[in-house]
Amino acid sequence: MKIHVVRNVLDAGEAAAETNRRRMDEAGVLGVNLLSAPGSGKTTLLEKTIPALGPDHRCAVLVGDLQTTRDAERLGHLAAEITQINTGRGCHLSAAEVARGLDSLNLDRVSFLFIENVGNMVCPAAFDLGEHLRAVLLSTPEGDDKVAKYPVLFQTADAILLTKTDLIGVLEFDLDRVRDDLSRVNTGAPLILMSPKTGEGLEPWLAWLMEQRRGRDKQ
Amino acid sequence: MKIHVVRNVLDAGEAAAETNRRRMDEAGVLGVNLLSAPGSGKTTLLEKTIPALGPDHRCAVLVGDLQTTRDAERLGHLAAEITQINTGRGCHLSAAEVARGLDSLNLDRVSFLFIENVGNMVCPAAFDLGEHLRAVLLSTPEGDDKVAKYPVLFQTADAILLTKTDLIGVLEFDLDRVRDDLSRVNTGAPLILMSPKTGEGLEPWLAWLMEQRRGRDKQ
Repeated sequence: MKIHVVRNVLDAGEAAAETNRRRMDEAGVLGVNLLSAPGSGKTTLLEKTIPALGPDHRCAVLVGDLQTTRDAERLGHLAAEITQINTGRGCHLSAAEVARGLDSLNLDRVSFLFIENVGNMVCPAAFDLGEHLRAVLLSTPEGDDKVAKYPVLFQTADAILLTKTDLIGVLEFDLDRVRDDLSRVNTGAPLILMSPKTGEGLEPWLAWLMEQRRGRDKQ
Repeated sequence: MKIHVVRNVLDAGEAAAETNRRRMDEAGVLGVNLLSAPGSGKTTLLEKTIPALGPDHRCAVLVGDLQTTRDAERLGHLAAEITQINTGRGCHLSAAEVARGLDSLNLDRVSFLFIENVGNMVCPAAFDLGEHLRAVLLSTPEGDDKVAKYPVLFQTADAILLTKTDLIGVLEFDLDRVRDDLSRVNTGAPLILMSPKTGEGLEPWLAWLMEQRRGRDKQ
Protein backbone atom coordinates (compact mmCIF):
# COMPACT_ATOMS: atom_id res chain seq x y z
CA MET A 1 0.00 0.00 0.00
CA LYS A 2 1.32 3.33 -0.93
CA ILE A 3 0.93 6.01 1.68
CA HIS A 4 0.70 9.53 0.43
CA VAL A 5 2.42 12.15 2.49
CA VAL A 6 1.38 15.73 1.96
CA ARG A 7 3.87 18.21 3.24
CA ASN A 8 2.94 21.77 3.86
CA VAL A 9 5.34 23.44 1.50
CA LEU A 10 5.81 27.04 2.48
CA ASP A 11 5.57 29.54 -0.30
CA ALA A 12 8.39 32.02 -0.78
CA GLY A 13 6.71 34.66 1.37
CA GLU A 14 6.00 32.31 4.26
CA ALA A 15 9.53 30.93 4.16
CA ALA A 16 10.95 34.47 4.21
CA ALA A 17 8.72 35.31 7.17
CA GLU A 18 9.97 32.27 9.09
CA THR A 19 13.56 33.25 8.35
CA ASN A 20 12.90 36.78 9.56
CA ARG A 21 11.37 35.45 12.80
CA ARG A 22 14.35 33.19 13.39
CA ARG A 23 16.77 36.06 12.79
CA MET A 24 14.92 38.21 15.31
CA ASP A 25 14.80 35.34 17.80
CA GLU A 26 18.53 34.78 17.46
CA ALA A 27 19.17 38.49 17.97
CA GLY A 28 16.87 38.49 21.04
CA VAL A 29 14.61 41.06 19.42
CA LEU A 30 10.82 41.23 19.77
CA GLY A 31 9.27 42.14 16.42
CA VAL A 32 6.05 44.19 16.51
CA ASN A 33 4.15 44.84 13.29
CA LEU A 34 2.04 48.03 13.41
CA LEU A 35 -0.97 48.02 11.09
CA SER A 36 -3.64 50.64 10.44
CA ALA A 37 -5.25 52.93 7.91
CA PRO A 38 -3.20 55.93 6.76
CA GLY A 39 -2.97 58.65 9.37
CA SER A 40 -4.06 56.62 12.38
CA GLY A 41 -0.97 57.67 14.28
CA LYS A 42 1.55 54.85 13.88
CA THR A 43 4.53 57.21 13.64
CA THR A 44 3.25 59.40 16.47
CA LEU A 45 2.85 56.30 18.62
CA LEU A 46 6.48 55.39 17.99
CA GLU A 47 7.58 58.98 18.71
CA LYS A 48 6.09 58.55 22.18
CA THR A 49 6.93 54.88 22.73
CA ILE A 50 10.63 54.79 21.89
CA PRO A 51 11.76 57.47 24.39
CA ALA A 52 9.40 56.09 27.05
CA LEU A 53 10.92 52.61 26.80
CA GLY A 54 14.19 54.21 27.83
CA PRO A 55 17.84 53.41 27.19
CA ASP A 56 17.53 49.88 28.62
CA HIS A 57 15.22 48.92 25.77
CA ARG A 58 16.74 50.11 22.54
CA CYS A 59 14.41 50.15 19.55
CA ALA A 60 14.97 49.57 15.87
CA VAL A 61 12.37 50.57 13.30
CA LEU A 62 11.51 49.53 9.75
CA VAL A 63 9.15 52.07 8.20
CA GLY A 64 7.09 51.15 5.16
CA ASP A 65 5.67 53.79 2.84
CA LEU A 66 4.94 53.98 -0.86
CA GLN A 67 6.99 57.15 -1.16
CA THR A 68 8.94 59.66 0.95
CA THR A 69 11.26 59.21 3.91
CA ARG A 70 9.21 61.51 6.13
CA ASP A 71 8.42 58.93 8.80
CA ALA A 72 12.02 57.79 9.05
CA GLU A 73 13.06 61.45 9.39
CA ARG A 74 10.57 61.90 12.23
CA LEU A 75 11.91 58.84 14.07
CA GLY A 76 15.59 58.95 13.09
CA HIS A 77 16.78 60.79 16.21
CA LEU A 78 14.78 58.49 18.52
CA ALA A 79 15.47 54.97 17.27
CA ALA A 80 18.78 53.17 17.74
CA GLU A 81 18.49 51.91 14.17
CA ILE A 82 16.04 52.84 11.43
CA THR A 83 15.46 51.98 7.79
CA GLN A 84 12.78 53.34 5.48
CA ILE A 85 11.37 50.87 2.96
CA ASN A 86 9.67 52.50 -0.03
CA THR A 87 7.26 50.08 -1.66
CA GLY A 88 6.48 52.24 -4.71
CA ARG A 89 3.02 51.00 -5.65
CA GLY A 90 3.12 48.14 -3.17
CA CYS A 91 0.15 48.17 -0.81
CA HIS A 92 1.84 46.32 2.07
CA LEU A 93 5.26 45.34 3.31
CA SER A 94 6.46 41.89 2.24
CA ALA A 95 8.62 39.46 4.19
CA ALA A 96 11.30 39.84 1.49
CA GLU A 97 11.37 43.61 2.02
CA VAL A 98 11.63 43.11 5.76
CA ALA A 99 14.48 40.64 5.18
CA ARG A 100 16.39 43.31 3.26
CA GLY A 101 15.49 45.77 6.00
CA LEU A 102 16.94 43.39 8.61
CA ASP A 103 20.16 43.22 6.58
CA SER A 104 20.47 46.98 6.97
CA LEU A 105 20.00 47.07 10.76
CA ASN A 106 22.45 46.39 13.55
CA LEU A 107 20.32 44.53 16.09
CA ASP A 108 23.01 44.32 18.79
CA ARG A 109 21.44 45.12 22.16
CA VAL A 110 18.11 45.98 20.51
CA SER A 111 15.00 44.95 22.47
CA PHE A 112 12.17 45.86 20.11
CA LEU A 113 11.93 46.00 16.35
CA PHE A 114 8.88 48.00 15.31
CA ILE A 115 7.73 47.44 11.76
CA GLU A 116 5.50 50.30 10.65
CA ASN A 117 3.49 48.83 7.80
CA VAL A 118 2.04 50.73 4.82
CA GLY A 119 -1.14 52.57 5.82
CA ASN A 120 -3.85 50.19 4.63
CA MET A 121 -6.55 48.30 6.51
CA VAL A 122 -6.80 45.44 4.03
CA CYS A 123 -3.69 44.03 2.38
CA PRO A 124 -1.10 44.12 5.22
CA ALA A 125 -3.37 41.89 7.31
CA ALA A 126 -2.80 38.99 4.91
CA PHE A 127 1.01 39.02 5.01
CA ASP A 128 3.13 37.55 7.77
CA LEU A 129 6.39 39.49 7.90
CA GLY A 130 7.95 37.28 10.55
CA GLU A 131 6.83 39.55 13.39
CA HIS A 132 6.08 38.15 16.83
CA LEU A 133 3.14 40.43 17.50
CA ARG A 134 0.68 42.63 15.70
CA ALA A 135 -0.64 45.89 17.05
CA VAL A 136 -3.56 47.34 15.10
CA LEU A 137 -4.40 51.03 15.41
CA LEU A 138 -7.80 52.59 14.82
CA SER A 139 -8.15 56.35 15.17
CA THR A 140 -11.43 57.83 16.35
CA PRO A 141 -11.94 60.10 13.30
CA GLU A 142 -12.05 57.01 11.07
CA GLY A 143 -15.37 56.12 12.64
CA ASP A 144 -16.80 53.56 15.03
CA ASP A 145 -17.84 51.17 12.23
CA LYS A 146 -14.37 50.07 11.16
CA VAL A 147 -14.04 46.87 13.22
CA ALA A 148 -17.13 45.44 11.55
CA LYS A 149 -16.03 46.65 8.13
CA TYR A 150 -12.44 45.38 8.30
CA PRO A 151 -12.77 42.30 10.51
CA VAL A 152 -9.76 40.42 9.11
CA LEU A 153 -7.39 43.15 10.26
CA PHE A 154 -8.79 43.15 13.78
CA GLN A 155 -8.97 39.34 13.98
CA THR A 156 -5.20 39.10 13.55
CA ALA A 157 -4.35 41.70 16.22
CA ASP A 158 -2.52 40.92 19.46
CA ALA A 159 -3.30 44.41 20.74
CA ILE A 160 -5.76 47.02 19.49
CA LEU A 161 -5.02 50.69 20.07
CA LEU A 162 -7.83 53.19 19.74
CA THR A 163 -5.94 56.41 19.03
CA LYS A 164 -6.82 60.14 19.00
CA THR A 165 -9.27 59.65 21.87
CA ASP A 166 -8.89 63.37 22.62
CA LEU A 167 -11.08 63.98 19.53
CA ILE A 168 -14.01 61.88 20.77
CA GLY A 169 -15.63 65.00 22.21
CA VAL A 170 -15.91 66.65 18.79
CA LEU A 171 -16.85 63.49 16.91
CA GLU A 172 -19.88 61.24 16.89
CA PHE A 173 -18.04 58.16 18.03
CA ASP A 174 -19.69 55.28 19.87
CA LEU A 175 -17.07 53.39 21.87
CA ASP A 176 -19.61 50.75 22.84
CA ARG A 177 -20.10 49.94 19.19
CA VAL A 178 -16.36 49.26 18.84
CA ARG A 179 -16.37 47.06 21.95
CA ASP A 180 -19.45 45.23 20.73
CA ASP A 181 -17.95 44.56 17.28
CA LEU A 182 -14.66 43.44 18.86
CA SER A 183 -16.54 40.98 21.08
CA ARG A 184 -17.44 39.11 17.91
CA VAL A 185 -14.11 39.47 16.13
CA ASN A 186 -11.32 39.32 18.70
CA THR A 187 -11.74 38.81 22.42
CA GLY A 188 -8.11 37.98 23.17
CA ALA A 189 -6.42 41.25 22.32
CA PRO A 190 -6.54 44.11 24.83
CA LEU A 191 -8.18 47.34 23.66
CA ILE A 192 -6.05 50.28 24.74
CA LEU A 193 -7.44 53.81 24.47
CA MET A 194 -4.75 56.30 23.54
CA SER A 195 -4.16 59.97 22.97
CA PRO A 196 -0.66 61.12 22.21
CA LYS A 197 -1.83 64.66 23.03
CA THR A 198 -2.98 63.94 26.58
CA GLY A 199 -0.67 60.98 27.17
CA GLU A 200 -3.66 58.73 27.85
CA GLY A 201 -2.98 55.08 27.21
CA LEU A 202 0.79 55.23 26.95
CA GLU A 203 1.33 53.42 30.25
CA PRO A 204 -0.89 50.39 29.55
CA TRP A 205 0.65 50.16 26.08
CA LEU A 206 4.19 50.18 27.51
CA ALA A 207 3.16 47.68 30.18
CA TRP A 208 1.76 45.40 27.49
CA LEU A 209 4.96 45.65 25.45
CA MET A 210 7.12 44.87 28.49
CA GLU A 211 4.91 41.95 29.46
CA GLN A 212 5.26 40.51 25.94
CA ARG A 213 9.01 41.06 26.12
CA ARG A 214 9.26 39.18 29.44
CA GLY A 215 7.05 36.37 28.10
CA ARG A 216 9.43 36.02 25.16
CA ASP A 217 12.54 36.02 27.37
CA LYS A 218 11.17 33.08 29.36
CA GLN A 219 10.76 30.90 26.26
CA MET B 1 10.37 42.41 -44.83
CA LYS B 2 8.05 41.31 -42.11
CA ILE B 3 6.40 44.02 -40.15
CA HIS B 4 5.42 43.18 -36.63
CA VAL B 5 2.20 44.65 -35.42
CA VAL B 6 1.69 44.79 -31.71
CA ARG B 7 -1.88 45.24 -30.70
CA ASN B 8 -2.80 46.46 -27.28
CA VAL B 9 -4.85 43.54 -26.12
CA LEU B 10 -7.00 44.55 -23.19
CA ASP B 11 -6.85 42.27 -20.20
CA ALA B 12 -10.09 41.01 -18.73
CA GLY B 13 -10.29 43.84 -16.19
CA GLU B 14 -9.72 46.57 -18.77
CA ALA B 15 -12.25 45.03 -21.13
CA ALA B 16 -14.82 44.84 -18.31
CA ALA B 17 -14.13 48.48 -17.46
CA GLU B 18 -14.70 49.54 -21.07
CA THR B 19 -17.96 47.60 -21.15
CA ASN B 20 -19.10 49.26 -17.91
CA ARG B 21 -18.30 52.70 -19.35
CA ARG B 22 -20.25 51.95 -22.53
CA ARG B 23 -23.22 50.74 -20.52
CA MET B 24 -23.22 53.94 -18.47
CA ASP B 25 -22.84 56.02 -21.63
CA GLU B 26 -25.78 54.29 -23.25
CA ALA B 27 -27.87 54.84 -20.12
CA GLY B 28 -26.84 58.51 -20.04
CA VAL B 29 -25.31 58.09 -16.61
CA LEU B 30 -22.19 59.83 -15.33
CA GLY B 31 -20.09 57.39 -13.29
CA VAL B 32 -18.09 58.85 -10.40
CA ASN B 33 -15.65 56.63 -8.50
CA LEU B 34 -15.02 57.81 -4.91
CA LEU B 35 -11.64 56.79 -3.50
CA SER B 36 -10.07 57.39 -0.09
CA ALA B 37 -8.72 55.87 3.08
CA PRO B 38 -11.25 54.28 5.45
CA GLY B 39 -13.30 56.84 7.33
CA SER B 40 -12.54 59.87 5.16
CA GLY B 41 -16.24 60.57 4.74
CA LYS B 42 -17.28 59.01 1.43
CA THR B 43 -20.67 57.88 2.75
CA THR B 44 -21.27 61.16 4.56
CA LEU B 45 -20.44 63.03 1.36
CA LEU B 46 -23.08 61.01 -0.48
CA GLU B 47 -25.60 61.59 2.33
CA LYS B 48 -25.24 65.31 1.65
CA THR B 49 -24.77 65.17 -2.11
CA ILE B 50 -27.70 63.03 -3.19
CA PRO B 51 -30.49 65.13 -1.60
CA ALA B 52 -28.76 68.36 -2.68
CA LEU B 53 -28.70 67.26 -6.34
CA GLY B 54 -32.49 67.13 -6.12
CA PRO B 55 -35.17 65.11 -7.87
CA ASP B 56 -34.04 66.25 -11.33
CA HIS B 57 -30.77 64.39 -10.89
CA ARG B 58 -31.51 60.95 -9.57
CA CYS B 59 -28.55 59.06 -8.18
CA ALA B 60 -27.65 55.40 -8.11
CA VAL B 61 -24.95 54.08 -5.81
CA LEU B 62 -22.68 51.03 -5.75
CA VAL B 63 -21.07 50.69 -2.31
CA GLY B 64 -17.98 48.58 -1.88
CA ASP B 65 -16.97 47.18 1.51
CA LEU B 66 -15.22 44.05 2.70
CA GLN B 67 -18.11 43.30 5.04
CA THR B 68 -21.41 44.74 6.30
CA THR B 69 -24.21 46.57 4.53
CA ARG B 70 -23.97 49.59 6.84
CA ASP B 71 -23.15 52.11 4.14
CA ALA B 72 -25.95 50.91 1.90
CA GLU B 73 -28.33 51.14 4.87
CA ARG B 74 -27.23 54.74 5.46
CA LEU B 75 -27.85 55.66 1.83
CA GLY B 76 -30.78 53.41 0.99
CA HIS B 77 -33.50 56.01 1.62
CA LEU B 78 -31.64 58.70 -0.36
CA ALA B 79 -30.54 56.98 -3.56
CA ALA B 80 -32.90 56.02 -6.37
CA GLU B 81 -31.04 52.71 -6.69
CA ILE B 82 -28.39 51.19 -4.47
CA THR B 83 -26.41 47.96 -4.31
CA GLN B 84 -23.85 46.93 -1.71
CA ILE B 85 -20.90 44.94 -3.02
CA ASN B 86 -19.06 42.93 -0.33
CA THR B 87 -15.55 42.12 -1.46
CA GLY B 88 -14.71 39.76 1.44
CA ARG B 89 -10.94 40.08 1.56
CA GLY B 90 -10.76 42.10 -1.65
CA CYS B 91 -8.91 45.38 -1.17
CA HIS B 92 -10.60 47.27 -4.02
CA LEU B 93 -13.63 47.05 -6.28
CA SER B 94 -13.04 45.32 -9.60
CA ALA B 95 -14.65 46.11 -12.95
CA ALA B 96 -16.26 42.64 -12.88
CA GLU B 97 -17.89 43.42 -9.53
CA VAL B 98 -19.12 46.75 -10.87
CA ALA B 99 -20.51 44.94 -13.94
CA ARG B 100 -22.56 42.68 -11.66
CA GLY B 101 -23.56 45.77 -9.69
CA LEU B 102 -24.77 47.44 -12.90
CA ASP B 103 -26.86 44.35 -13.64
CA SER B 104 -28.67 44.92 -10.34
CA LEU B 105 -29.47 48.60 -10.90
CA ASN B 106 -32.26 50.20 -12.90
CA LEU B 107 -30.52 53.18 -14.49
CA ASP B 108 -33.65 54.67 -16.12
CA ARG B 109 -33.64 58.43 -15.59
CA VAL B 110 -30.54 58.22 -13.39
CA SER B 111 -28.06 61.09 -13.79
CA PHE B 112 -25.18 60.04 -11.54
CA LEU B 113 -23.83 56.66 -10.54
CA PHE B 114 -21.59 57.02 -7.51
CA ILE B 115 -19.23 54.11 -6.90
CA GLU B 116 -18.00 54.16 -3.33
CA ASN B 117 -14.80 52.15 -3.43
CA VAL B 118 -13.28 50.12 -0.59
CA GLY B 119 -11.50 52.37 1.89
CA ASN B 120 -7.87 52.08 0.82
CA MET B 121 -5.40 54.67 -0.49
CA VAL B 122 -3.34 52.21 -2.54
CA CYS B 123 -5.02 49.41 -4.46
CA PRO B 124 -8.21 51.08 -5.79
CA ALA B 125 -6.07 53.67 -7.59
CA ALA B 126 -4.73 50.98 -9.95
CA PHE B 127 -8.09 49.66 -11.14
CA ASP B 128 -10.29 51.30 -13.75
CA LEU B 129 -13.90 50.37 -13.00
CA GLY B 130 -15.28 52.06 -16.11
CA GLU B 131 -16.05 55.28 -14.25
CA HIS B 132 -15.97 58.62 -16.06
CA LEU B 133 -14.46 60.52 -13.16
CA ARG B 134 -12.55 59.97 -9.97
CA ALA B 135 -13.03 61.98 -6.83
CA VAL B 136 -10.41 61.40 -4.15
CA LEU B 137 -11.14 62.32 -0.54
CA LEU B 138 -8.56 63.18 2.10
CA SER B 139 -9.76 63.95 5.61
CA THR B 140 -7.82 66.38 7.77
CA PRO B 141 -7.24 63.94 10.69
CA GLU B 142 -5.30 61.67 8.32
CA GLY B 143 -2.57 64.28 8.22
CA ASP B 144 -1.12 66.79 5.79
CA ASP B 145 1.55 64.39 4.50
CA LYS B 146 -0.73 62.01 2.62
CA VAL B 147 -0.48 63.53 -0.87
CA ALA B 148 3.29 63.00 -0.85
CA LYS B 149 2.96 59.53 0.63
CA TYR B 150 0.23 58.24 -1.71
CA PRO B 151 0.97 60.15 -4.92
CA VAL B 152 -0.52 57.58 -7.31
CA LEU B 153 -3.97 58.00 -5.79
CA PHE B 154 -3.87 61.77 -6.11
CA GLN B 155 -2.37 61.70 -9.61
CA THR B 156 -5.43 59.88 -10.92
CA ALA B 157 -7.98 62.24 -9.35
CA ASP B 158 -10.32 64.48 -11.34
CA ALA B 159 -11.34 66.27 -8.14
CA ILE B 160 -9.76 66.24 -4.69
CA LEU B 161 -11.94 66.81 -1.65
CA LEU B 162 -10.32 67.78 1.63
CA THR B 163 -12.95 66.70 4.15
CA LYS B 164 -13.55 67.32 7.88
CA THR B 165 -12.14 70.83 7.60
CA ASP B 166 -14.09 71.71 10.76
CA LEU B 167 -11.43 69.73 12.68
CA ILE B 168 -8.48 71.79 11.39
CA GLY B 169 -8.69 73.99 14.49
CA VAL B 170 -7.96 71.08 16.83
CA LEU B 171 -5.35 69.43 14.60
CA GLU B 172 -1.89 70.33 13.48
CA PHE B 173 -2.70 70.43 9.80
CA ASP B 174 -0.78 72.50 7.26
CA LEU B 175 -3.00 73.20 4.26
CA ASP B 176 -0.10 74.83 2.40
CA ARG B 177 1.79 71.56 2.59
CA VAL B 178 -1.12 69.78 0.87
CA ARG B 179 -1.29 72.46 -1.84
CA ASP B 180 2.47 72.33 -2.30
CA ASP B 181 2.51 68.53 -2.65
CA LEU B 182 -0.46 68.68 -5.05
CA SER B 183 1.40 71.21 -7.20
CA ARG B 184 3.89 68.44 -7.98
CA VAL B 185 1.39 65.60 -8.32
CA ASN B 186 -1.80 66.92 -9.88
CA THR B 187 -2.43 70.47 -11.00
CA GLY B 188 -5.52 69.75 -13.08
CA ALA B 189 -7.95 68.62 -10.41
CA PRO B 190 -9.69 71.21 -8.27
CA LEU B 191 -9.09 71.03 -4.51
CA ILE B 192 -12.38 71.48 -2.70
CA LEU B 193 -12.39 72.06 1.06
CA MET B 194 -15.37 70.41 2.71
CA SER B 195 -17.05 69.98 6.04
CA PRO B 196 -20.29 68.06 6.17
CA LYS B 197 -20.85 69.56 9.62
CA THR B 198 -20.71 73.20 8.57
CA GLY B 199 -21.83 72.64 4.98
CA GLU B 200 -18.59 74.18 3.71
CA GLY B 201 -17.64 73.03 0.24
CA LEU B 202 -20.89 71.40 -0.74
CA GLU B 203 -21.74 74.08 -3.29
CA PRO B 204 -18.46 74.02 -5.25
CA TRP B 205 -18.62 70.21 -5.23
CA LEU B 206 -22.17 70.22 -6.60
CA ALA B 207 -21.20 72.86 -9.16
CA TRP B 208 -18.26 70.70 -10.26
CA LEU B 209 -20.50 67.64 -10.62
CA MET B 210 -23.08 69.57 -12.66
CA GLU B 211 -20.36 71.04 -14.87
CA GLN B 212 -19.02 67.54 -15.56
CA ARG B 213 -22.54 66.35 -16.27
CA ARG B 214 -23.12 69.17 -18.80
CA GLY B 215 -19.73 68.51 -20.41
CA ARG B 216 -20.69 64.87 -20.85
CA ASP B 217 -24.11 65.76 -22.32
CA LYS B 218 -22.44 67.86 -25.04
CA GLN B 219 -20.28 64.98 -26.26
